[in-house]
Formats: sequence, structure tokens, C-alpha cells
Amino acid sequence: MKKTLIVSIVAAAALLLSSSISAAAPRYTSPEVNPDGTVTFRIYAPEAKVVMVTGEPGTHELVKDEEGLWSYTTEAPLMSELYFYRFSVDGTSITDPRNCYTIRDGGTVYSYFVVPGGRGDLYIPQNVPHGTVSHVWYNAEALNMPRRMSIYTPAGYEEGKGKYPVFYLLHGQGGDEEAWLAFGRAAQILDNLIAQGRIKPMIVVMPSGTTPHQAVPGESGEGMYVPDGAGAYNTSFEAQFKDILEYVDSHYRTIRKSSGRAIAGLSMGGEHAFQTSLNYPETFDYVGLFSSCARVRELNGKELFPEIYMNTVEKMEVLFKNKPQLYYIAIGDKDSLYDMNVRIRGILDSHNWPYTYLETSGGHSWRNWRIYLVDFAEKLFK
Amino acid sequence: MKKTLIVSIVAAAALLLSSSISAAAPRYTSPEVNPDGTVTFRIYAPEAKVVMVTGEPGTHELVKDEEGLWSYTTEAPLMSELYFYRFSVDGTSITDPRNCYTIRDGGTVYSYFVVPGGRGDLYIPQNVPHGTVSHVWYNAEALNMPRRMSIYTPAGYEEGKGKYPVFYLLHGQGGDEEAWLAFGRAAQILDNLIAQGRIKPMIVVMPSGTTPHQAVPGESGEGMYVPDGAGAYNTSFEAQFKDILEYVDSHYRTIRKSSGRAIAGLSMGGEHAFQTSLNYPETFDYVGLFSSCARVRELNGKELFPEIYMNTVEKMEVLFKNKPQLYYIAIGDKDSLYDMNVRIRGILDSHNWPYTYLETSGGHSWRNWRIYLVDFAEKLFK
Repeated sequence: MKKTLIVSIVAAAALLLSSSISAAAPRYTSPEVNPDGTVTFRIYAPEAKVVMVTGEPGTHELVKDEEGLWSYTTEAPLMSELYFYRFSVDGTSITDPRNCYTIRDGGTVYSYFVVPGGRGDLYIPQNVPHGTVSHVWYNAEALNMPRRMSIYTPAGYEEGKGKYPVFYLLHGQGGDEEAWLAFGRAAQILDNLIAQGRIKPMIVVMPSGTTPHQAVPGESGEGMYVPDGAGAYNTSFEAQFKDILEYVDSHYRTIRKSSGRAIAGLSMGGEHAFQTSLNYPETFDYVGLFSSCARVRELNGKELFPEIYMNTVEKMEVLFKNKPQLYYIAIGDKDSLYDMNVRIRGILDSHNWPYTYLETSGGHSWRNWRIYLVDFAEKLFK
Repeated sequence: MKKTLIVSIVAAAALLLSSSISAAAPRYTSPEVNPDGTVTFRIYAPEAKVVMVTGEPGTHELVKDEEGLWSYTTEAPLMSELYFYRFSVDGTSITDPRNCYTIRDGGTVYSYFVVPGGRGDLYIPQNVPHGTVSHVWYNAEALNMPRRMSIYTPAGYEEGKGKYPVFYLLHGQGGDEEAWLAFGRAAQILDNLIAQGRIKPMIVVMPSGTTPHQAVPGESGEGMYVPDGAGAYNTSFEAQFKDILEYVDSHYRTIRKSSGRAIAGLSMGGEHAFQTSLNYPETFDYVGLFSSCARVRELNGKELFPEIYMNTVEKMEVLFKNKPQLYYIAIGDKDSLYDMNVRIRGILDSHNWPYTYLETSGGHSWRNWRIYLVDFAEKLFK
């Protein structure tokens, strides 16, 4: 048999999977980042009446051609960034059928693309040395369950013998141990910043603060649950942090003192970082609150929160007596948690506890959290 | 502030992401595995005219209720298995918008679910010890590029000191280093078989045979390419195997002799396993060809294939002189590559080279390849 014939047979076999369940549709690409920086979205939907793109590119109607292919091109070039979106087809919200680049947030899957040429270049892999991303399981004694977490080790870690600092990076409500890898682009950001010499090589530990579940959908021994956005409040992420710390320090070559440890989180994860730093006051020299939901509480018999959340100002005194290298607060000027962060800063100011503050435009968004990750990481372990 | 109020504020903030881009839709679940084993599919599409579910559950029309919610319930209980599917809405093929369980094959994303209670139980995580899945990068000198691969280490590996056997597991055309983890359920199958005492703990290495690309979409330094199904023929997966072997043996506690090494692959990966076993004839005691595209070639000046693909019968003689513990062929009775496997078996038979043969019903499908993985793994390293 001729090579070409054999290759065709194999290709036909491989394509059976998709061809057997796809409708006949014209060849097209979506999304397409055009040479001028505009972006074109397309979807084949010959019978649809109204088709819209929704999400970070904004909400825009697509226009249908005679073959039933809808399209919309942004009026202006899009800034270099990562954008997530979905289509709305006659009111049904779907991912882009032609885009295999998807990221999941809780129970919803989104399509995404990156416009290169600026900030977005940090969010896609470049031709630089890549770290290893591992999904490990540890025993969360405090929660009486096995739990999964994601761990980034920088390029060269596996080949070397040196000890590395560790950055504990926490997601927000509804997220999980893959949130910072997906929307947060943590592995790409770390690879790129290390390659550019802007940060020190470090281990990044991304546990799940969604304590009701062992793991992301599809990896949990509890079966095929549907994420419901329930978070971890009152379920003691802070209590299980001991288990995480012990696992990491016993399985990796870590710098086992506060100068080699950072903790930061976004939103609910900001509260987790805040409370964990207070309850382990000699553990971290670097603390970051990104759009944080950190709440300051005095002991109050009427509160339902467990002891671990109480006496926060008293605990802050202990923390700041140890003079952390960096206490970092970042938030968007339109963030729904802005006032809560004003209150935290007020307490820091009134006690003359030093902190670094970054205010960006915008709200409670991954766009901001990626900016904070870059900014915070550049200040670590110097 | 009261706790409940604060929690509500945070929940509202967390939900902004999804609510801002979702159309108003009734609450519903899809898919739903009913207590009697039937499965109900649902999608909200008030304006659609024809809605179908397509894929492994078969092709079936859904029926719309007065609120615009379409549904279809299978007539009979579905056998315990993993099923992938998509919806067709007026000819537009989409994933199930309500199902966050998705798996990607090449450039196409599918929704999936598992019916428990039988074989499917091997394909979902159970409450058993879980191995670690790592995505590592190695230098593929033979291809002059960095490449990503997935490595499963069994529960206890990180805590122990012993050496482990290694199973090299190869995907088919259009696949990548995540194919066996996604459709193949390799991590779940290994976890469950090890916990049941049916197989020995082993390291499973899943490289990418799609040599044009460094990594899966979103992880490759070459940018946001669209997978085109192009495989690795003529691009020397077998040549780069040396790099993979060296990486694994230098980074993991492996049994570095043929009694501790297995190689198997499906379709194109079956050819890769076939050729690799021939070109490294003292390396593997266990060789598996799953629905394989293994081609037997004599040296022929007109062939375009490189030397590494030539003189296969001669090389088979060398391989079988070393008396491998297991030479394994499995294929479905309706597989498009059935005749090619008849030919291979004919050569084995004519030389009295021993092999184990499994023929199952069905075709060139992941359903069969998961069965072969289980069956083959149970025969390894005994």
C-alpha cells in the first residue's frame, strides 16, 4: 500500500469521532485576532434570529451572511489581554463551538483568547523554560478528607538540589485548586516573569479553599457533583492550612522559615490569606490581599464564627510585631469590596502598621487579579 | 455588619462573573442520571426549532416544554460507562451549556457523564488513595524543541523510596499528552485498579505523539494554535523516545530494565508502540497494540519513511529473541483497522511468536481503549 493511502485511512478513522456527531458546517475560524488587533467572532447558526457575543469583549450582536455564518468584528483593536466570552444564540448561552480554548470557573465553562503584543504576552506560554504543574493529594486531617491541590515548581527545580521559597496562592469563592491556573494564568505568569529575571524562582502552592469538595469536578471521590458556588466560610480553611504546610514542607525542598514564605489570595482567598497570616503569625514574611474580603472581628459572644476568626486586631498586633517584609493590599476602584478594604487600611493606618497599596481601575475581576499577581510576585523574597 | 449580610455581598460579587453574561434561564440540570439508570438531557433554547443530542448516547430529538426547556430521556437505562455527547441546536453543534464536565479531543470539546454501577465506576474517582498527575517539560533533542508530557505517579510514590516500573502509554492521531487523562481516564483507572489490588503500583508516562506541537492548546510556546488533527507520521516519535526515556529514568525512581518497562498505544500510538519496541528491542518486556495502525515494512527504496520505520520483520525477530513477557494485540470487531491487525497477527503466527489477543465488539473508540488499558495493565509486571 502507498503511504498516502494508509495515512488517509488513519486520518479517516481518527476523524470518525468528530464527524459522526457534527453537523455540516462551513470551514471557519473563531475567534480570529486580526493583524490590526481587532478580533472577529464567528458562529455557524443558520436558523438563529439573534446572536450575541457576551463577556469581556462586551455585548455585541453578530450579523448573519447568506450561508448562515454569523460574525462580529470589534470596532477598535483590543488591548493586549486575556478575554473570556460566551455566545448567546436566541437566548441560549453557549461556549464558542469552534474555540477549543476553554476555562472553567466553578460550574461554568467559558471560551477565551489572548490578544498578544503587551500584557497578554505574560498570560500565554512563551518559548522560555517551563515549570512543572502537579496535582497532588494530601490528607486534610482538619476536614477529615483527602484533598487535591496544584503545585507549580519552577524550571530547574527537578534537576537541582537547592531550597526554594514557597508562595501560597488562594482563589476566591466558587473557585478551586485550578482557578489560578485557568483564569489566573499562574503557571504562564511565573514562567515568563522568571525567564525575564523579574522574580525569583519559587514554588507556588494552589490549594482549594472550597472546603465542601475534595477536588475539581471530575477529580473528586465524592462523585460527579455540580459546583454550586458555595465557599469555605465557617469551614475552616485556616484550620486545614497546617495540613497543607506540613505536606509542602515534607514533600518539597522548601525554605522553612518566614523569609521563604508568602501567602496571598483574591476575594474569599484574601480573607483566607488574612486569617491564615494572623493565625500563623511567624510563618509568612509576605502577605497579599487581592480584592480581599478580609473582615476584622473582635471577640463577640453573638458571633457564629469559630475562634480562629476572632480577635483579629489583637492578632494583627502580633503579626506586625514580627515586622513582615511586605503587607500588600490591592483593589480596583470599582470593586464591590472597596469599602471593606478602606476599613482594613484604616486599621493599618491607625496603628502605623506599614503596608503597600495598589489601586487599579475596574472591579472584582480576574483582569485585576492577574495584575496583582504580577505586581506582588515581583516584590517577593528579595 | 451581620455575617449573613457580608456573606451575601461576597456571594453577589462572586456571581457577577457569570450573571453578567448569562441569559435568564430556568433552573435545571443536564444531564441527569435518573435512579432507574435512564439519563435525561436538557437545554434551554426557547427559540430553537430542532434540538438533538448527538454522540455516544445516540442521536435523539429533544422535546420542548412551554417554558422553552427541551428534554430527552433515554428509553432504557444506559449501561455503566462514560459517554461523551454534544447538542445540535438547529444545526449548530455545541457542548451542553449546563454541564461543566468537559473533555477535549484535538480541537473539539465534548460534554461527558458517567453512569455508575459497573464498568463506569473505574472511570470516575472513588474514595481511594489518589496518585499525582504532573505535567512536565523535557528537551526533545531529536525534534529540537521543548515538549510537555503527563506523568502519573501512584499514591505513596512521593512518600516512599522504592523503585517503580514504568508504563509508557501513547495516544492516537489528533491526540496529545492529555488524551489518555481525558477520554482515557488513565489516572482514575490506575487509582482504582491499584486500590483494588488488581495491578501493581506503577508510573505511567503519557507523552505527546503529535510531534508538530510542543504541548496541548494553551500550554504551548508556539502560541494559540488550532489543532488540525495532524499526527506524527514521518516526524519521528520513535526517534524522540530516547529523550523521553532519559528524562523519566533521570527524574523518577524507576526500574531501569526491560522487566520494569511497558509500552502501549492506541491507533497511531499503536504504531508508535510497535516501532518503538522494535527500535529499542531490549527495553520493554511488555508491548501493547490497541486498535493499532502498526505497519510492517520491508526496506524499499521507494518508501518515503525514514530508516526507523524500515526492516520491521527483521527487527521483530530481534525483539522476540529477547522473549518479551507479553506481546498484546487488542481490537474491536468493527474497527476500521481490523485488516491491518489481521496482517500483523499473520506475521506473528507464521513465525510462532507468542502474543495475547483480545477482540471486543465495536470499533475504533475510547470505549474499547479504556477496556484494553484495564486488561493490559492487569497483565503487567507480574
